Amino acid sequence: MDRSELYRQITQKKSMLCVGLDTDPEKMPAGISMYDFNRLIIDATAQYAVAYKPNLAFYEAQGIDGWKTLEETVGYIRANYPGMFIIADAKRGDIGNTAKMYAKALLGNLDFDAVTLAPYMGSDSIRPFLEYKGKWAIVLAVTSNASAAEFQYRDCGGEPLFMKVVKEMAGISSPDNMMFVTGATHVSELAEVRKAVPDNFLLVPGVGAQGGSVADVIKYGSNSMGGLLINASRSILYAGSKINDFEYAASEAAKSLVRQMGIA
Amino acid sequence: MDRSELYRQITQKKSMLCVGLDTDPEKMPAGISMYDFNRLIIDATAQYAVAYKPNLAFYEAQGIDGWKTLEETVGYIRANYPGMFIIADAKRGDIGNTAKMYAKALLGNLDFDAVTLAPYMGSDSIRPFLEYKGKWAIVLAVTSNASAAEFQYRDCGGEPLFMKVVKEMAGISSPDNMMFVTGATHVSELAEVRKAVPDNFLLVPGVGAQGGSVADVIKYGSNSMGGLLINASRSILYAGSKINDFEYAASEAAKSLVRQMGIA
Repeated sequence: MDRSELYRQITQKKSMLCVGLDTDPEKMPAGISMYDFNRLIIDATAQYAVAYKPNLAFYEAQGIDGWKTLEETVGYIRANYPGMFIIADAKRGDIGNTAKMYAKALLGNLDFDAVTLAPYMGSDSIRPFLEYKGKWAIVLAVTSNASAAEFQYRDCGGEPLFMKVVKEMAGISSPDNMMFVTGATHVSELAEVRKAVPDNFLLVPGVGAQGGSVADVIKYGSNSMGGLLINASRSILYAGSKINDFEYAASEAAKSLVRQMGIA
Repeated sequence: MDRSELYRQITQKKSMLCVGLDTDPEKMPAGISMYDFNRLIIDATAQYAVAYKPNLAFYEAQGIDGWKTLEETVGYIRANYPGMFIIADAKRGDIGNTAKMYAKALLGNLDFDAVTLAPYMGSDSIRPFLEYKGKWAIVLAVTSNASAAEFQYRDCGGEPLFMKVVKEMAGISSPDNMMFVTGATHVSELAEVRKAVPDNFLLVPGVGAQGGSVADVIKYGSNSMGGLLINASRSILYAGSKINDFEYAASEAAKSLVRQMGIA
């Protein structure tokens, strides 16, 4: 999906919401499968969401069945909600010939629109993902976790490592095939990234269960083409606890986040 | 597997060889499955190897069948070659609750001895892997690819980023559950890492197809308990080209690398 189509989805739905499918059998209502849970969550939230983001760890933890669920979930979204942006939250990063295989697995075979990637190994490890037309690399800049600062904030010759990452990666790509992860829990860094790459979309985790402010993210991160995908996972998926209310609770949690975005 | 057992395997076999299972249907002899290829490569090289390292990208690129092959390959090694160290070359790295799922998938369910991990997100993203007794986290320090220098060599307050990574990660772990990836293509950096962590094992890619020198790696990287796992993938797997010589060629390539190690 290209940038103008993504922007069109955002203006149509007045939403930048990305729902993270961190589907955990231990937190789900008992008695339904991961796939059924995903399907019901998607149906309950699709009117409020412009993107879904399965977190691959949760599927890999279920082995072969998990991969089957992942494939089926992507297929379900494609079949029922055309125009939805689908992100593989994979945080891969490896040498060129291996990166090519991950790109094939996720952008090729599984037909995700985008993959999250770790930058530590440099541009070699990102380039193979940029070769898929209409697809996206989403590179980690500032993550939402507490230990993000350990390396990402290190001063590297006058600016923090995450700014080097953003500039280097912007240099090998365009705002039409590269996004950056910038956590909502680090708003001043998000603002710095926005200044460095005014046109790129930012994928923003850290609202919801991790506590970041939606209003701040919009204030410091949005641009004239939307420019943001704001992710929430646990706070939507597990908003309800009982078998008969989780869909309603997820829908309400999604609606509430979208209201906080205040997109006219 | 603990460090003294790994050292015992090294002295018994006079080898530090790790065979990377980057199994690619496009490079394999035609007419056999990925699993059969792995099985035959393992049988041909097991007398020379102390470790195998399936590269997860190559299995994910085959979807569900690939995951099945991965499970079967680990099972085959466990059943036929007890004492073999098995590494999931996954280069994962994510926030704590997600890292826990990757650890479960790879160290728990699939029963790998170790997983390679990317450090960009900091110690939060590594800790869940350290909770598995007798298992190992192998963190990227200096990778073997050309663009490794882009971020890993950046000066961060008087020392390069990779040294910060090594010191920080050594600080949350012990030489009994942490190894570091240091590429053979960057020997002076390998020597620096060895000085900083005299007791940790180093996993060294970059000999073979990537051109690093085995003698240099031994000279600058070994310690009194071995201290090295030297990986080769493509140069062993695809040493032969024809259906009837690939096993012999792989075996000879492995033997030659082990001879270059010159372990008494």
